Amino acid sequence: MNDIVQLDHGSGGRATQELVQRCFFQLFANEYLLQMNDSALLPWAGGQMAMTTDSYVVDPIIFPGGDIGSLAVHGTVNDLAMQGARPLYLTAGFILEEGLSLEVLEYVARSMAEAAREAQVMIVAGDTKVVPRGKADRLFINTAGVGVVPSGIRVGGQYARPGDSVLINGTIGDHGIAVLCKREGLAFEREILSDSAPLNDLVSGILESCPRVRVLRDPTRGGVATALNEIAQQSGVGIVLFEESLRIKEDVAGACEVLGLDPLYVANEGKVLVFVPPDDEQLVLNLMRNHPRGRDGVKIGQVTQEGAGRVTLETGVGGHRLVQMLHGEQLPRIC
Amino acid sequence: MNDIVQLDHGSGGRATQELVQRCFFQLFANEYLLQMNDSALLPWAGGQMAMTTDSYVVDPIIFPGGDIGSLAVHGTVNDLAMQGARPLYLTAGFILEEGLSLEVLEYVARSMAEAAREAQVMIVAGDTKVVPRGKADRLFINTAGVGVVPSGIRVGGQYARPGDSVLINGTIGDHGIAVLCKREGLAFEREILSDSAPLNDLVSGILESCPRVRVLRDPTRGGVATALNEIAQQSGVGIVLFEESLRIKEDVAGACEVLGLDPLYVANEGKVLVFVPPDDEQLVLNLMRNHPRGRDGVKIGQVTQEGAGRVTLETGVGGHRLVQMLHGEQLPRIC
Repeated sequence: MNDIVQLDHGSGGRATQELVQRCFFQLFANEYLLQMNDSALLPWAGGQMAMTTDSYVVDPIIFPGGDIGSLAVHGTVNDLAMQGARPLYLTAGFILEEGLSLEVLEYVARSMAEAAREAQVMIVAGDTKVVPRGKADRLFINTAGVGVVPSGIRVGGQYARPGDSVLINGTIGDHGIAVLCKREGLAFEREILSDSAPLNDLVSGILESCPRVRVLRDPTRGGVATALNEIAQQSGVGIVLFEESLRIKEDVAGACEVLGLDPLYVANEGKVLVFVPPDDEQLVLNLMRNHPRGRDGVKIGQVTQEGAGRVTLETGVGGHRLVQMLHGEQLPRIC
Repeated sequence: MNDIVQLDHGSGGRATQELVQRCFFQLFANEYLLQMNDSALLPWAGGQMAMTTDSYVVDPIIFPGGDIGSLAVHGTVNDLAMQGARPLYLTAGFILEEGLSLEVLEYVARSMAEAAREAQVMIVAGDTKVVPRGKADRLFINTAGVGVVPSGIRVGGQYARPGDSVLINGTIGDHGIAVLCKREGLAFEREILSDSAPLNDLVSGILESCPRVRVLRDPTRGGVATALNEIAQQSGVGIVLFEESLRIKEDVAGACEVLGLDPLYVANEGKVLVFVPPDDEQLVLNLMRNHPRGRDGVKIGQVTQEGAGRVTLETGVGGHRLVQMLHGEQLPRIC
């Protein structure tokens, strides 16, 4: 069983990390790939370029608050923004299953086009492949993107420092729960919507006013818990998370309870974790709260010297528990 | 039946063109996407960048002369080279089916790494998704790539001019027939090998010595016939193809006969069509023949004023027949 690909290899958590180490990092090894941030930061024409890719296999392909098309644009735009880049150009690769409705394909393409317009990026190249019935699941999309990184920007998972404040632009768990409820046919009083959204405008505003931002990361697959563990490892610091500060919508919390999921591990598609020196905390929170994508911005944690490489949750009653990287596959095909 | 995706939508021929027009070009419309060359040519930092993407769904994933990994590198490197670009950086997105052997995945990754080394490009970012058994066919790979376009280069499908010579760097049909024979279990006296190879070194040598090259295109899906039809349409010229000049390996020709295939429509993955002013024909042929990827370089046609938008085959006995763009799906999942 250790010799085959298993679902948890796609979880975004520890198993994914192990697979990627074993199969890709060692073989493709180069300084850019090994940066291990959301995008690679590359030298280009005397300046710097960010480049990234993601494939999207979400099931169902249309869900409350979005669809595979808008998600494929937001996800890649956001990975570029996390490097401080201004996203410019995307490519789109489609793998279609024979028999897919052209109406669905047009719906998805229209949604991509709208998402690209909103994020002010252009889809400049594409590719379409078709496989026979039963050899794919309706529609997979890959997007890759490039963006220009303004000079003077220096953000990355390796730059967190003890004392930094950890901020996030709102509630957690919305995307994963929205997709899962749709897939499993679970209904709540109000429909739970994905938070899928482009973050480049919010992020560029923050960076303009506060170039001292240390880390930007979007907690997608594996959720906030996994993203923070990665940063703790990259920077060799501890991170304390304040349970009482985390904002979780009531219905999302309810769904997590019913489904036995921890919202800290559930994917978000419109959230960014921002690490800033404590002096800049209030400035960045204000910027978030004045932006439509950050109304519920909040401080959720602090970077510490002790506990290097680890994330700890400080519970309401003053207790502490270790928050590990995602093990196993909590939610397959969430993005 | 017109409302669903069919196999021939992935052929690279007319049906693909129609689908892409209907679903993507209209919705994503921008000047770069509508260039309709192998890569988009984009302004970047005062210079020019080429960007492209392809998804690879070839079946079987390992075939004589290559595998899905080397193909995914060669295909994208070549699409960049066709724009006159020096390929620099690639991304790689993997969609894995649960149950895929990790040994196979490592084999493919190793092959990608070797292909990237040979082509002198770096794989700088990646993504891995896993879908449940039966929701994909073992392994799909997307690669996207960027390359820098030296100033003064001006190549594209729109620049063919009456009188231009049409050259190719060797035999045609090898890749498609190699994959098909492996898939169908057809054996010939000698094993037919794919021509899958990086063309950037050959192409950059040609462009350095002969900057007047007008068009570069790699005749992949849809074959030489489809690529030439595209160029004839883009440039508004006619193209005459000399049947007797086409080089086809004996076994490839034999396989085509057995399988009822026309080699003009069979995919190549290591060939480039070069359009040059007649004065440069001999120079470019010499360059090709002195390069390991162009030993069998040959002139196969001529651009004409008459017959704009059409490709004509001049047969050995002095006859002429129209060579249309690929209709229907000749060879599914060849790349």
